[in-house]
Amino acid sequence: MKIELINTGSELLLGRVLNTHQQWICRQLADRGYQVTRQCCISDDGKAIETAMQEALTRSDLIITTGGLGPTSDDITRELVAKLLGKKLTLDEAVLANMQKYFRDRKRLMPASSKVQAMVPEGAVVLPNNHGTAPGLAIPAKANTWVVMLPGPPRELRPMFLESVVPLLEKQFPLAHPFVCRTLKTTGLGESFVEEKIAVPLQALVGQGLEIGYCARIGEVDVRLVGHGSDGGKIVAAAEDIVRGLIGPLIFGLNDDSLEVALVRLLTEKKKTLALAESCTGGFIAHRITNVPGASEVLMSGMVTYSNHAKMDLLGVRESSLKEHGAVSEVVAKEMAEGARRRAKTDYAIAVTGIAGPGGGSEAKPVGTAYVGLSGSEGTQAQRLFNPFDRETFKFVTSQQALDWLRRTILTGQIE
Amino acid sequence: MKIELINTGSELLLGRVLNTHQQWICRQLADRGYQVTRQCCISDDGKAIETAMQEALTRSDLIITTGGLGPTSDDITRELVAKLLGKKLTLDEAVLANMQKYFRDRKRLMPASSKVQAMVPEGAVVLPNNHGTAPGLAIPAKANTWVVMLPGPPRELRPMFLESVVPLLEKQFPLAHPFVCRTLKTTGLGESFVEEKIAVPLQALVGQGLEIGYCARIGEVDVRLVGHGSDGGKIVAAAEDIVRGLIGPLIFGLNDDSLEVALVRLLTEKKKTLALAESCTGGFIAHRITNVPGASEVLMSGMVTYSNHAKMDLLGVRESSLKEHGAVSEVVAKEMAEGARRRAKTDYAIAVTGIAGPGGGSEAKPVGTAYVGLSGSEGTQAQRLFNPFDRETFKFVTSQQALDWLRRTILTGQIE
Repeated sequence: MKIELINTGSELLLGRVLNTHQQWICRQLADRGYQVTRQCCISDDGKAIETAMQEALTRSDLIITTGGLGPTSDDITRELVAKLLGKKLTLDEAVLANMQKYFRDRKRLMPASSKVQAMVPEGAVVLPNNHGTAPGLAIPAKANTWVVMLPGPPRELRPMFLESVVPLLEKQFPLAHPFVCRTLKTTGLGESFVEEKIAVPLQALVGQGLEIGYCARIGEVDVRLVGHGSDGGKIVAAAEDIVRGLIGPLIFGLNDDSLEVALVRLLTEKKKTLALAESCTGGFIAHRITNVPGASEVLMSGMVTYSNHAKMDLLGVRESSLKEHGAVSEVVAKEMAEGARRRAKTDYAIAVTGIAGPGGGSEAKPVGTAYVGLSGSEGTQAQRLFNPFDRETFKFVTSQQALDWLRRTILTGQIE
Repeated sequence: MKIELINTGSELLLGRVLNTHQQWICRQLADRGYQVTRQCCISDDGKAIETAMQEALTRSDLIITTGGLGPTSDDITRELVAKLLGKKLTLDEAVLANMQKYFRDRKRLMPASSKVQAMVPEGAVVLPNNHGTAPGLAIPAKANTWVVMLPGPPRELRPMFLESVVPLLEKQFPLAHPFVCRTLKTTGLGESFVEEKIAVPLQALVGQGLEIGYCARIGEVDVRLVGHGSDGGKIVAAAEDIVRGLIGPLIFGLNDDSLEVALVRLLTEKKKTLALAESCTGGFIAHRITNVPGASEVLMSGMVTYSNHAKMDLLGVRESSLKEHGAVSEVVAKEMAEGARRRAKTDYAIAVTGIAGPGGGSEAKPVGTAYVGLSGSEGTQAQRLFNPFDRETFKFVTSQQALDWLRRTILTGQIE
C-alpha cells in the first residue's frame, strides 16, 4: 500500500514555519504498521497543488493533504481538490451549525469568511473538528483510492487524525502483515562505532528479513530495527536481544523515549527526588524534565541563577569561590549542586554553569565551556565539558550530558 | 529559477525524526531572494532516490539533497546520484587527509567504514566539512543545472551551506529581481479577524503585485507580505505601513522574531530587569528568554517552584495562602510574583501557577487552568487563563500570554 503526504502552505517553502505534521503523521502511521512512501511540500498555488495531486493519484492508494482549509483567501485546497476529482461543492448545514456552535461556545462572533469552511464535496466523508472550525474531508477518488484533507493547525489535525482517519484507514486498508519497527535510543557513542559493534552480530537476522537503520543526532544515535513479513515481530525481538547484549548500558530508551522521559521514569521507580541549579542552560533542563507528565513527583525545584547575586542568595555559593575561580568553574559547579540539594532537600541535584555564547568567552574558558556538578548521598563531583556550538545546541548537548550522568549514577549507585 | 529540495532518510518517513533541514534551507534561500518550489522526503531506498532525482532533473535548475552521505550501510545517496549522472567515483586524497586530520584532532580512531566518505564523483566541486567528516558535493548535471548533496547532521550542513552553497548559488544563478518577503508577527487576534482588518485596505497594492499570506499558529498569526518584480521592495514597504496603521499594537516583531526576542530587546532598551517564578510552565519561560543572546543582562533569576515547600522557601509565599486558596490561585500567583521580584531585586517579575495535566484537575480548576502574576513598580496583578491543551502546548500558550502581558505593560507603563 502506498501512502503519500502532501503538505501545503507557502510558509513551509519560505521556511517561516517548521513542518511538524510530517513527523507526527508519519509516526502515527508507522506505529500502526503503515508506512508513508513519499512526502512533499508545495506552496499555496493552484497549479502546484494540481500537479502534485495528479502525480500522487497515479501512484498512491491514500493521499493525505494538510493545510489550505482555513477561511482566508490563500486557503484553496478544498476547492481545487474537489474540482480535480470532479466533485461538486455544496454547503453542509450540519457542518455550518457545528461551526456556529463552536463560536457561540467561545462567546465570539463567527467571521463571515468562515462560511466557506462548511462547503463539502459530494460523496465526501466529513471528519469532525472538535478543536477548531474547518472539518476534515475524506473523498473516495477512485476504486481503492482515497484523498484525505486535514486542516493545518496541529491541535485540530492531531485529534481529528486519531479519531477519524485511523478508523477509516483500518476499515478501508486492513493490513495482513504490518511491519514491526522498534528504535533503540542510545547515547555515549558515535554512529560508526555503534554500527561497528552490532552490524556483524546482526548479519544472520538481516538474511531473514531484518532491516537496520542508524540515525545520528547530537548526543544520540538511534538504532532502528524493522521486521517485515509474518515473522517480523520475532526477528525484531531477537535483534533487540543481541543489541542489548552488546551495548546495553548505552540504551536509555525505546521508540519515542527521550532521555528526560527515561530519567523521570527511573527517578520515580527508585523514589528519588531532584533539584536543579542552572546558569548557562537557563531553565532548559527544568523544561525538559517538566515536559514529562508526573515530573512534579520527582523535581522539587529548579533555580535559574544567571547572576552571581542569585548564585549566592539562592544556592549559598561563596563569594570567595566566585572571585577566586570565576562563576564558570569546578568549585562553583559543586557549590551550586550542593546548595540546590541542601535547599530543596532532595536526593540529587544537578548544577550547570558555563558560557553559551556568542559573547563571554576567554582563552582559558572559551565559548562552549561548561561545568556540570552532580550531588547526591554518594558525594559531589563536577566535570568539565566543551560544547562549542550555537546557543540552542549548546543548551541541548550540555543538558543531555548532565541528564545522562545522573541516569548512569542512579543505575550504578556511584557518581563516576 | 526552480529549486527542489530532496530530504533522504527512512527515519523521516517513519516519523522518528523531525525534518528541520526543510525549514532552515528554505529560509536561508528565501532570505536571499531565492524560493524553493518543491520539497520532498524519500526513504533510504535506491529506487526511490533514483525516481525522485529523475523527476527533479526534468523540472528544476538546482536540486539540493540532504542526508545519505554518512559511513553506514544505509547511506547510499553519493553512489546513486553519481551513477544516475554517469559520473565515476574516485578516492579524493585531499578529502581523505582532511578526514584523517578530523579524527586525529579529536584523539579518536577513524573507523574503516568512513573511507567511503572520501569518494568524489568526477567533475564535482567538494564542499568542505569543517564540523564533521563527510564533505558536501556540488555536481554540474547538465547545462545550468546543478545537484548539491549535503550531509544530514545540522551542525555540519548549516555552516557548509553558508560557506560553500550560498557563494556557488550567487555565482551560478545570479538574480535580476529577487523577491522581497517580510513577515509581520502578531499576537492577540485570530487569523480571520486579522484578515478582516487588513485585506480590503491592502487591495490596491495586490493589484500592483503584492502577495499576502496568513499563517495561524497557537497564540500567533503571521502576516506575510511578498513583493515581486523591480518594485517589490517599495510595494512591501507601503503594505507594511498600512498594516501597522491598522493593527500596530498586535505586531511584536518581524520575520524570524519570536516574542522572547522582542521582549529581551525591549527590556534591554528600557534597561529593565526581570525575575521569573514558574510552577506549571516548569522553566519553559526561562528557557525561551535564555535562548536569546544577551538575556543574561535582563534576566536575573528564575525559580521553578513545583513544590509548596519551594514556593514558601524561595518566594516567601504564605502557608496560609496555599491552604486557603490552593497553589493554583490568584493570591498565590501574586505572592509568587512579588516574592520573585523582591528576592531578585528586579524591575519586573512574572509568576505562573497552574495545572498542565494530564492529572491534577478538579471541577473548579480543570486541567488547563493557570494564573499569571505580574509584579512591577506599577503594582501587582494576576489573571486567570484557560488553556486546555496537551502539556507542551499548554506550556507554550501560557508562556506566550505571560510574555505578551509583560511586553504590553512595558510599552504602556501600566499593568492592565
